[in-house]
Amino acid sequence: MAIFKQITIIGMGLIGSSIARAIRGKDIADRLIGCDKNEEHCDISRSLKLTDHMTSDPADAVHNSDLIILATPVGTYDQLGKVICPLLQSGSILTDVGSVKSSVLKTLSQYIRPDCHLIPGHPVAGTEQSGPTAGFSTLFKERWCILTPPENADPAMIRKLEEFWQAIGSKVELMTPDHHDMVLAITSHLPHLIAYNIVGTARHLEEVTKSEVIKYSAGGFRDFTRIAASDPTMWRDVFLNNKEAVLEMLGRFSEDLSDLQRAIRYDEGDKLYNLFDRTRRIRKQIIDAGQDEDVPDFGRHLDDE
Amino acid sequence: MAIFKQITIIGMGLIGSSIARAIRGKDIADRLIGCDKNEEHCDISRSLKLTDHMTSDPADAVHNSDLIILATPVGTYDQLGKVICPLLQSGSILTDVGSVKSSVLKTLSQYIRPDCHLIPGHPVAGTEQSGPTAGFSTLFKERWCILTPPENADPAMIRKLEEFWQAIGSKVELMTPDHHDMVLAITSHLPHLIAYNIVGTARHLEEVTKSEVIKYSAGGFRDFTRIAASDPTMWRDVFLNNKEAVLEMLGRFSEDLSDLQRAIRYDEGDKLYNLFDRTRRIRKQIIDAGQDEDVPDFGRHLDDE
Repeated sequence: MAIFKQITIIGMGLIGSSIARAIRGKDIADRLIGCDKNEEHCDISRSLKLTDHMTSDPADAVHNSDLIILATPVGTYDQLGKVICPLLQSGSILTDVGSVKSSVLKTLSQYIRPDCHLIPGHPVAGTEQSGPTAGFSTLFKERWCILTPPENADPAMIRKLEEFWQAIGSKVELMTPDHHDMVLAITSHLPHLIAYNIVGTARHLEEVTKSEVIKYSAGGFRDFTRIAASDPTMWRDVFLNNKEAVLEMLGRFSEDLSDLQRAIRYDEGDKLYNLFDRTRRIRKQIIDAGQDEDVPDFGRHLDDE
Repeated sequence: MAIFKQITIIGMGLIGSSIARAIRGKDIADRLIGCDKNEEHCDISRSLKLTDHMTSDPADAVHNSDLIILATPVGTYDQLGKVICPLLQSGSILTDVGSVKSSVLKTLSQYIRPDCHLIPGHPVAGTEQSGPTAGFSTLFKERWCILTPPENADPAMIRKLEEFWQAIGSKVELMTPDHHDMVLAITSHLPHLIAYNIVGTARHLEEVTKSEVIKYSAGGFRDFTRIAASDPTMWRDVFLNNKEAVLEMLGRFSEDLSDLQRAIRYDEGDKLYNLFDRTRRIRKQIIDAGQDEDVPDFGRHLDDE
């Protein structure tokens, strides 16, 4: 028996369309409804047969579903919650895939009905590409999905949502929304902010031309441009909705950077060496934990030899 | 006819051993001498047959060579220059592969004899791995090698060195050492500094455990750990020897970051969106220029489907 009778995915971008692909062919839902306000995304999803039914109307999309997944930028949740919550089937689970969780819980709690279950979630997975053609079925394989249920959530419903994520390859962890937002501020939000910033700084240089920045990007810069190519709307909403944690981590980052700057200015070679040596070990631990592959330079040269 | 009678590579790390591998089987040198002060590196190079002769003594290594390539951290050049310059064959070219150029030119100019040719160089290529086993023959393919000859350099000798780099797959560009150091400060040195710094900041957090940083690193952080796994000695020497340009770029980066920080604090969504949208286009230009591959997430998921 399928885990859910009918699942609705609202937002057929990288994450939404990857969930649709991951569900296909597995006994997870009897019926899958997709929704995207962008008619072009609807057409692509239809032609790729990603769902059983596509609509651009969220009110239509949630009808009769027992799992509703929001996969749009978190800035849209207020409006979406207002529209869909009165229409949800009694007993259904409302979840999401947004990269921030405290503000999401606060926003959606305003609209969720007592006879439905709000359990926000965040699959820590993605690429720098966007839209329904960017998704793929194995995106969540071996990646963590964090659920941040409110304190009064029904354990049976949490268990059911865990089962869903596990069925598409994820490992599931529960935490409070506040803790989630702090962990992700350092592991995801700050790295993106720094990457956007350095690419922005490079654009402004007049002494160094843009063609030089591009030509010599293999020296390290190009790695940052990958992250800085992520969806701008999604990331704007992340920073506006995780302001406190991001500003806190940014403060620490800047303090540490000032310290490093002084070490360079005053020729403190040992201090630089010690930091550079310690950071090297973190990479090894990430590879040992299966969170990245053990190939030099992300495997860029593997097809050359 | 080979380009050089005998080439000496001092330092059989990632770059030195990659040059040795790239030379092999091509009509570039009649004889190849390798040198490394680390006896283990010598043994590995011997067993991999990377050169015709290995020695740990630089004085021995340069004897009779018409091209000598320094491929050790730039902090070693002063001592090396002092030892080898008096022993160079008349008419030979002394070059290097260091990531900074003004300080290298200044250091080696003290020792180079008038009957030899100093032409510093920098192949903009590499991975985060180190040592003679990390090298591979196609490392320089389609990458740029920058030569920074002194003003009085012999054009025929510059041409010969260009020919060498082209023979192992590089594209060659000439520029002044000062301009090189500024271009690389933004495309390579600052990205490395930022990566080392953010990995350092993550290590210090007490509210977020190290295991959480590792588990959720797929959100962006893991990309930075790759760069922050690069050779610590090499990078210490880069920062100490390109201090002015790095501090200048770091100043601009920090100003831009403060501006971004204010935009987050005061909810300036449009400002964030506009920056994030512009940086996205730089990625496309790097891919169009053949300086990175057009695969999402560095191709990490390609073998999954």
